[in-house]
Amino acid sequence: MIIVMKENTPALEIERMVKSLEDRGFQIDKSTGSRKVVLGLVGDTSALDERDFMGHEWVDRVMRVQEPYKRASRAFHPEDTIVDVSGVKVGGKKLVVMAGPCSIETPDQIHGIAKEVKKSGAAILRGGAFKPRTSPYSFQGLGEKGLDLLLSAARDNDLPVVTELMSADKIGTFLEKKIDLIQIGARNMQNFDLLKAVGRLNVPVLLKRGMSATIEEWLMSAEYIMSEGNHNVILCERGIRTFEKATRNTLDLSAIAAVKRMSHLPIIVDPSHATGKRWMVESMAMAAIAAGADGIMCEVHNDPENAWCDGAESITPETFDHMMKKLREIAPIVGREL
Amino acid sequence: MIIVMKENTPALEIERMVKSLEDRGFQIDKSTGSRKVVLGLVGDTSALDERDFMGHEWVDRVMRVQEPYKRASRAFHPEDTIVDVSGVKVGGKKLVVMAGPCSIETPDQIHGIAKEVKKSGAAILRGGAFKPRTSPYSFQGLGEKGLDLLLSAARDNDLPVVTELMSADKIGTFLEKKIDLIQIGARNMQNFDLLKAVGRLNVPVLLKRGMSATIEEWLMSAEYIMSEGNHNVILCERGIRTFEKATRNTLDLSAIAAVKRMSHLPIIVDPSHATGKRWMVESMAMAAIAAGADGIMCEVHNDPENAWCDGAESITPETFDHMMKKLREIAPIVGREL
Amino acid sequence: MIIVMKENTPALEIERMVKSLEDRGFQIDKSTGSRKVVLGLVGDTSALDERDFMGHEWVDRVMRVQEPYKRASRAFHPEDTIVDVSGVKVGGKKLVVMAGPCSIETPDQIHGIAKEVKKSGAAILRGGAFKPRTSPYSFQGLGEKGLDLLLSAARDNDLPVVTELMSADKIGTFLEKKIDLIQIGARNMQNFDLLKAVGRLNVPVLLKRGMSATIEEWLMSAEYIMSEGNHNVILCERGIRTFEKATRNTLDLSAIAAVKRMSHLPIIVDPSHATGKRWMVESMAMAAIAAGADGIMCEVHNDPENAWCDGAESITPETFDHMMKKLREIAPIVGREL
Amino acid sequence: MIIVMKENTPALEIERMVKSLEDRGFQIDKSTGSRKVVLGLVGDTSALDERDFMGHEWVDRVMRVQEPYKRASRAFHPEDTIVDVSGVKVGGKKLVVMAGPCSIETPDQIHGIAKEVKKSGAAILRGGAFKPRTSPYSFQGLGEKGLDLLLSAARDNDLPVVTELMSADKIGTFLEKKIDLIQIGARNMQNFDLLKAVGRLNVPVLLKRGMSATIEEWLMSAEYIMSEGNHNVILCERGIRTFEKATRNTLDLSAIAAVKRMSHLPIIVDPSHATGKRWMVESMAMAAIAAGADGIMCEVHNDPENAWCDGAESITPETFDHMMKKLREIAPIVGREL
Repeated sequence: MIIVMKENTPALEIERMVKSLEDRGFQIDKSTGSRKVVLGLVGDTSALDERDFMGHEWVDRVMRVQEPYKRASRAFHPEDTIVDVSGVKVGGKKLVVMAGPCSIETPDQIHGIAKEVKKSGAAILRGGAFKPRTSPYSFQGLGEKGLDLLLSAARDNDLPVVTELMSADKIGTFLEKKIDLIQIGARNMQNFDLLKAVGRLNVPVLLKRGMSATIEEWLMSAEYIMSEGNHNVILCERGIRTFEKATRNTLDLSAIAAVKRMSHLPIIVDPSHATGKRWMVESMAMAAIAAGADGIMCEVHNDPENAWCDGAESITPETFDHMMKKLREIAPIVGREL
Repeated sequence: MIIVMKENTPALEIERMVKSLEDRGFQIDKSTGSRKVVLGLVGDTSALDERDFMGHEWVDRVMRVQEPYKRASRAFHPEDTIVDVSGVKVGGKKLVVMAGPCSIETPDQIHGIAKEVKKSGAAILRGGAFKPRTSPYSFQGLGEKGLDLLLSAARDNDLPVVTELMSADKIGTFLEKKIDLIQIGARNMQNFDLLKAVGRLNVPVLLKRGMSATIEEWLMSAEYIMSEGNHNVILCERGIRTFEKATRNTLDLSAIAAVKRMSHLPIIVDPSHATGKRWMVESMAMAAIAAGADGIMCEVHNDPENAWCDGAESITPETFDHMMKKLREIAPIVGREL
Repeated sequence: MIIVMKENTPALEIERMVKSLEDRGFQIDKSTGSRKVVLGLVGDTSALDERDFMGHEWVDRVMRVQEPYKRASRAFHPEDTIVDVSGVKVGGKKLVVMAGPCSIETPDQIHGIAKEVKKSGAAILRGGAFKPRTSPYSFQGLGEKGLDLLLSAARDNDLPVVTELMSADKIGTFLEKKIDLIQIGARNMQNFDLLKAVGRLNVPVLLKRGMSATIEEWLMSAEYIMSEGNHNVILCERGIRTFEKATRNTLDLSAIAAVKRMSHLPIIVDPSHATGKRWMVESMAMAAIAAGADGIMCEVHNDPENAWCDGAESITPETFDHMMKKLREIAPIVGREL
Repeated sequence: MIIVMKENTPALEIERMVKSLEDRGFQIDKSTGSRKVVLGLVGDTSALDERDFMGHEWVDRVMRVQEPYKRASRAFHPEDTIVDVSGVKVGGKKLVVMAGPCSIETPDQIHGIAKEVKKSGAAILRGGAFKPRTSPYSFQGLGEKGLDLLLSAARDNDLPVVTELMSADKIGTFLEKKIDLIQIGARNMQNFDLLKAVGRLNVPVLLKRGMSATIEEWLMSAEYIMSEGNHNVILCERGIRTFEKATRNTLDLSAIAAVKRMSHLPIIVDPSHATGKRWMVESMAMAAIAAGADGIMCEVHNDPENAWCDGAESITPETFDHMMKKLREIAPIVGREL
């Protein structure tokens, strides 16, 4: 961390600052410019916050030199991490597509969709049982019964499942039912207690990016999970909130390249929630793979117009099959397969 | 809700749509334009989501005519709600100022600050015991021990307390210790399980606006709490995330007028977190009161430069006292007192 | 346009509103709901602004049913427009890549780069002579001398040129020197006088998206140009301003699908300005083509580290050549060639 | 400026960097940390851009230590600047209110409004003759005829005028007609040629903040004007673009405190365009004055419901008079008068 002292800071104040930092265990590189003094902190600054110093009367600016995350950082772990989801490897040569309905509705619905997406090449079955809805009056998901339907459909088609966990008090249920991949939704990306709780499990976690989270904050949330011992984290870009109204959110595909450089964790893309528009899903999925994503998560529904939620962004099994063919064509160009 | 059908929608499709809506219990006003047919839904649309219809092949546009919130809406409750926090009325003629340190550190610190802010006119003591921090390596608060220190300082100065609840499993502790006002932080504004949990309590809730939450989403989160039975909700504007970097967040003071028109709930403003800059707190607090806020929540620390968190935005008791004098001058101009 | 009147609007006020709209030449479809009356306007509403009615005492909500743009709209022009830039067709089967330095510096520089990018398959040479710089103290471009250098390099390599016009008083110079494609930069996207001025020319225009422009506003700016008679407009997505700091701007690739649906105009993508990072350019260019863009505009410099501007986002001719190979592989998957 | 070199940068590369910076006239403070080398540049860095160095292979991070603006900076000009608009002082003890219609419509309209706002205490008459409209089909203002009407109404009421200049080719007209204060609109805040053109005049300039401009970029645009010799710049905050939809833009009142600290230029606030809602104008104007603004600019119309533009945000002369009374009450609390 670099601390720039204000012009005309009394020498005594600089000495006090240096002393106080040395007392906290840092070595200090002091550089005296024509107008300003700059202090460089040498040591582990991951527990420091730039803002801790911004309140100091004589501090002008503060700049981090090392990233605030360690376990999630590529600097400390140069090779790509491959997360094993009950046999499906995420982050390796093979692209992984997770597909299924926004919410689990009926046995027929989930079994039918599971069969279709499996046939088209999906590797993991998704489906919401506990649904975060903006309105308390909207359908909130089938809950545990939904989990059972999801698992039954998955087993019949030999697929692992991913589903969202909204609250730590359901962890027992998730473990008991052997959910293969636990999703932390965008709205809970900074629900730190929940992050710590899944950090203590031995189950992989899919961490969606918060609607207004910077990439650095997102990696810090991954760090929360990893700092508790669980290193099996998959990141999922799902669009950020901007002023644009033509799409539900703005899909930030440059996050893929950024994450790949900053971190060793795998990253997939959810074009359904990002765009909110069924007719954009295929082109955005193709773009995501071309940009280097490790996979796709998307919403597939047999009857989108009558889906209990998010029908506007769900594609049919036929469209999904078409999309998979396109992704299969792009894969080798980016050194992948599907 | 108004549904605009696409140009050239077959009459049969329009009939099917009308039938399906009637089956769901709505009466339909059909209006046939030169190019498009418009359907008006009559009935309780609060459980509907515009997006439920956007996926329909023949639907062009959808517009809500009634707000999606009911209990939080001024339309259904024209008079201002006054929330009673252990005797302190929030939302009435008297402005309410909540002050105290970002985090509770030591007995001396919290007792000293409590005494000072009480003397200057604060009505509620704030202090963080469970702290949501971006980094898992930052100080996370003193936890239950912090609550005890806060309560002891508050009792000595005859002040109710407000403190953040981050996780439902601490509700028992909060109830047992008789926390007067439970804060739901910005990062948990859409942690719906936590909202429902505090909605079942008989304790007032301070609901901070999420960093990228629209005012409507914020009111929907209040609706979550109210729909479970707890109508004692105070809203707190604390800045939204924008592209601007000169401040930590962008304080949205127009939210005050908007909330006052849309809802009957009281709204206060937190200029400390909004700006992230100590030297902006007073002017933004004055602006908030001039704009019609019901009160202020702000961070006060006896030694901001050495605060364990958020020192950059904490003001000293002396500055706080000065600010209170200024707020007292503005109050009568907006028909309030302090 | 649909106008929803407030609950309890007196019948007389509704009649006055209907009368006033009929006087302006609209036919009115009136629909009376259980609580609210809805008026549908039939006729050409392109000159109306929703905001014109929002000020009315008895108006609750207003919704546009027809797009405010006409000439730029696909509804009125279903086939794709192909813009001819001195023989290079933009918007057809063949993808078009525009490449060159951020700013023209020396004869050697621009001739060298022109030769290299031509060899790799670029179809149009870009280069800035008049540079919009945030600081008045930064290099502002070589001006007319720069145009001459650009044209000389282009002619030697049989390439048309694209370069930015910042002010209407340089139009004479641009015409005289026969600039093939006139670029309107992001900062001037709503410089309406400049848009009208290029709208009166017989030269194609490349219209960059403003940093905080919605897609609708962008199309309205195209409409400004087209309404003056010049229909040869190419759109260029170059990133929008968001809270994210890992990239210079956030590239909005979903704009491609949105524009293709809303308009018939061709759209290309500038991954250099969008990301501000050299190492992201190739992956974002690939993603753009996979998403359906009609081409790419990117910055190429022989010595990026010593470029006079935007070196951080400029790629070398070698990297450009590698990128072109990748784009050539993706092209057939989206039914294009390069 | 501080340049942090990457870990493991070869000593030779650091020497080359130091040499190249010294060749450009800077003195270099080199600080060697345990892992990274930090270079501090001593000298005038205002012509440098952080991005110029970010492209360098061995550069990790760059941080500005001095602001990029000079003439607009308070560091170089500690006292407040007071701009004289034909006798009306902006930036002094007396608050200045500029009021009038969005667009000039008829002689009666502008004369009537001028008389009313003068009576209530407005010091400058505003009115649009050249209107920047999103749609080419919307009313574009009366042009020169509008200027004449504005000036006639102003003279009759002994008021200076402020009106928007959209294009440099109208400067002759503005000078000839002796427009007292030239407004540069939000959409032209980075129309650098226009900024330079008004920078060469001897007429004060009102510079509105761009919709997505950071405060630093805004001050850089003021710097453009000042660098040409015209130091009479008044800044006007008018809301920034965010995700929030309840208001037209988000009024950023913390910009007042920020500008006052960073610059010596006066700053006023336009609550009309910021909120887009008539019923918010008074409370936001009061908040702006409480926050330390030097004045207000607002839209007043005798018949807002039939205004030719922006009726939704225009207040009546009666409401304006009420607002002025409120501002007069707040003024002394912030050490001002009205």
